[in-house]
Amino acid sequence: MNNSLWITFLEQLGENKISKSESELYRHSRDESSHLFVEPDFVVFPENVEDVVKVLQLANEKEVAVTPFGAGSGLEGQSIPINKGISLNFDRMNKVIEFSPEDLMITVEPGITRLQLNEYVNRHGLYFPIDPGADASIGGMVATNASGTTAVRYGSMRDQVLDLEVVLANGNVIHTGSKAKKSSSGYHLNGLFTGSEGTLGVITKITVKLHGIPEKVLAARCTFQTPGECAEAAQVVLSSGIQVIRMELVDAESIKQVNEYGNYSFPEEHSLFFEFAGAPNIVEEEATVVEELMKELGCNNWERANSSKERADLWKARHEMAYAFKHIKGKVSTGSDSCVPISKLAEMVVFGRELLEESGLIGGVFGHVGDGNFHTLVMYDPNDPVEVNKAEYTNEQIALKAIKLGGTCTGEHGVGLGKMKYQVTEHGEAVELMKSMKTLMDPKGILNPGKMFY
Amino acid sequence: MNNSLWITFLEQLGENKISKSESELYRHSRDESSHLFVEPDFVVFPENVEDVVKVLQLANEKEVAVTPFGAGSGLEGQSIPINKGISLNFDRMNKVIEFSPEDLMITVEPGITRLQLNEYVNRHGLYFPIDPGADASIGGMVATNASGTTAVRYGSMRDQVLDLEVVLANGNVIHTGSKAKKSSSGYHLNGLFTGSEGTLGVITKITVKLHGIPEKVLAARCTFQTPGECAEAAQVVLSSGIQVIRMELVDAESIKQVNEYGNYSFPEEHSLFFEFAGAPNIVEEEATVVEELMKELGCNNWERANSSKERADLWKARHEMAYAFKHIKGKVSTGSDSCVPISKLAEMVVFGRELLEESGLIGGVFGHVGDGNFHTLVMYDPNDPVEVNKAEYTNEQIALKAIKLGGTCTGEHGVGLGKMKYQVTEHGEAVELMKSMKTLMDPKGILNPGKMFY
Repeated sequence: MNNSLWITFLEQLGENKISKSESELYRHSRDESSHLFVEPDFVVFPENVEDVVKVLQLANEKEVAVTPFGAGSGLEGQSIPINKGISLNFDRMNKVIEFSPEDLMITVEPGITRLQLNEYVNRHGLYFPIDPGADASIGGMVATNASGTTAVRYGSMRDQVLDLEVVLANGNVIHTGSKAKKSSSGYHLNGLFTGSEGTLGVITKITVKLHGIPEKVLAARCTFQTPGECAEAAQVVLSSGIQVIRMELVDAESIKQVNEYGNYSFPEEHSLFFEFAGAPNIVEEEATVVEELMKELGCNNWERANSSKERADLWKARHEMAYAFKHIKGKVSTGSDSCVPISKLAEMVVFGRELLEESGLIGGVFGHVGDGNFHTLVMYDPNDPVEVNKAEYTNEQIALKAIKLGGTCTGEHGVGLGKMKYQVTEHGEAVELMKSMKTLMDPKGILNPGKMFY
Repeated sequence: MNNSLWITFLEQLGENKISKSESELYRHSRDESSHLFVEPDFVVFPENVEDVVKVLQLANEKEVAVTPFGAGSGLEGQSIPINKGISLNFDRMNKVIEFSPEDLMITVEPGITRLQLNEYVNRHGLYFPIDPGADASIGGMVATNASGTTAVRYGSMRDQVLDLEVVLANGNVIHTGSKAKKSSSGYHLNGLFTGSEGTLGVITKITVKLHGIPEKVLAARCTFQTPGECAEAAQVVLSSGIQVIRMELVDAESIKQVNEYGNYSFPEEHSLFFEFAGAPNIVEEEATVVEELMKELGCNNWERANSSKERADLWKARHEMAYAFKHIKGKVSTGSDSCVPISKLAEMVVFGRELLEESGLIGGVFGHVGDGNFHTLVMYDPNDPVEVNKAEYTNEQIALKAIKLGGTCTGEHGVGLGKMKYQVTEHGEAVELMKSMKTLMDPKGILNPGKMFY
């Protein structure tokens, strides 16, 4: 980038909203994935929608790439500015704009994080339940259509978004929805912009649904002989119509890592973790019904976490899983994020486990078994080409098999850089339509270029 | 239309798939709304996706309008071929393509109706819960993003659609999703085509979620002094987190009509109707909690319908409401379909009731109060210009006020012909984007022209 561009942006925005310090360029070059790091030319810190409009109008005129950056917790490189240009950081746009507890609804700026949002609304007896594990920014979660352990009950971000304020490539500002809980008016722009990873517009306000904090939460776990049996048991729970709030599969290898890492003593077998939430008597009843179902299927080690301490430990262990693996010295991690029809999950989980064994790499299989979404986590030495290849091979085999079985290459992490190569395989002719929509809405290709589609 | 076009289509499709008989032209000129009737030039009865491709390729080449027709139960004129041309009737495309009970999922052709679909899956202990009242075709329900009394629990059609097969204007066939329960891959075409009312493509296959038939269903009702109190009570239930399956407001005037029409003896007061569904003990518990909440709020006449006969009666009465009004001689009906944030519902319901009183027309207020979606039903003499104007005035005032309060002009009926005039007021600048998407995907404007946008 030539220096005159830097000066133009500097003059337009003022020096306290723009930086090309070494530390900022470094921070905005990466996310939590193992994708190649690329530094932007400079970083802009907008403070309001007008700043974003200004940036996009200038960027569009000068044809400079703009890549939004939230908390940097992405897993597919969406916020890595691979064409350099501007990293648009939302740290300063993290305010609550309007809170309507009586409507179970809040409007926030994209930079607010999941935990900040919950801190704000929890004291009103409400919570925002989508939980991807990391303390991601809400903007980033919308952009990738994130979900996580509670998707079995609440769906993904797309199911929570009521309205977005979006700045288009030409600087026009639109709203994609309304504050009504449902609507049949106009085209569904809410759904289109959610999950578009900053390639169609830049999100500047977000209205999402909130939910009442459940009066009681009860956790339980049990184990089965094989990962396949776990998956089948999960299917039985789903068919029962019982609204579990979380239902997670964790394979024996992952439990072993967690035990070592966190000094727990969970039975080192293939496990299902449950969470029930709601009115106390209802929760009690749900847990009892699921316990009966699981025991009929021959589960072992059914155990309820009755106290909130026990429950916290149980879910802490689940959330520490990625870190449990990551503490292995000299290794980095990669993993798959496939989602398949529930009936294919047992087959996929077994397949994933076999691939890991064959590769000889350390890794685990776990995931949101109520959605058919599961992850493998594979540890490899980034300096050993053989290990790198093996790790990539397991990811690729899982993605391709998932697509073949009617599923998707990414259930919740998004396309970013890592899943571009599967778009045509998964979506076929529809990719041409998606690309033509991108060209329509961003003719100069300034919005997060180099992501999603080739 | 000149005769050579008719001959071209006749030759390409064969005479048993095409008709311009008087009775067919009449049948395809209308839906259940009071919008102006327009006959198509002819009707085509495709039997498979290849037929639809053929029709669209020819229509695109010859620039002939194509308007899809399902069960004709729409309420906003979506299936009325106002630019004449071809009415595309899906009666013969009503098959089940793939049924995966273990995945709680089914793939059907668009012509299958809601009751046919349920008949097919009910024997497997499953059901498709979206219930707009009429026995609409599933294709029509997708096209309008229909919902109804169960939306408080299951959302609208858009929340049920996993994948669509769509024929684009140029005859290309795409899939909009996959068979995974969630996905972060590609742009969300599922959501875009759902609710697009045949203006972006023609739907030829639909994969939707199914749900387990609840083991027990329990209905109840109670009354309050004012419609506003009913709306506030509904808000309390929502905040409690109890997953009611239906929660309907019916005002006193509507109850009176229902009593007369169906020979019921419901208390002629402003009422809330509830339905709870799930495992027996859980349902019992939910009903008890809601009963306590309602009594704390000062409800009257709490009554449970314990037997399935009593429950059927109660919901039959609710579903007969539109007909109860419609049996008034010499009158036709129109109505509003607004949806607002829950906290604004009481205000809107009162406003609607006042507008009806002022107009001097007979009418009722009722609706899906758990979503903020409610209807007014206004009876008027179509040959009396003063009554016509008054009826239109009430609809317009309600739509405009709903939009002003952050809501939408249509919660579930769709835009069609009746809500076009509110699109810019509701969506602002976004309408330009929607129209450019329409032009991109249907450059010759053959797909259901004259609907949604001016």
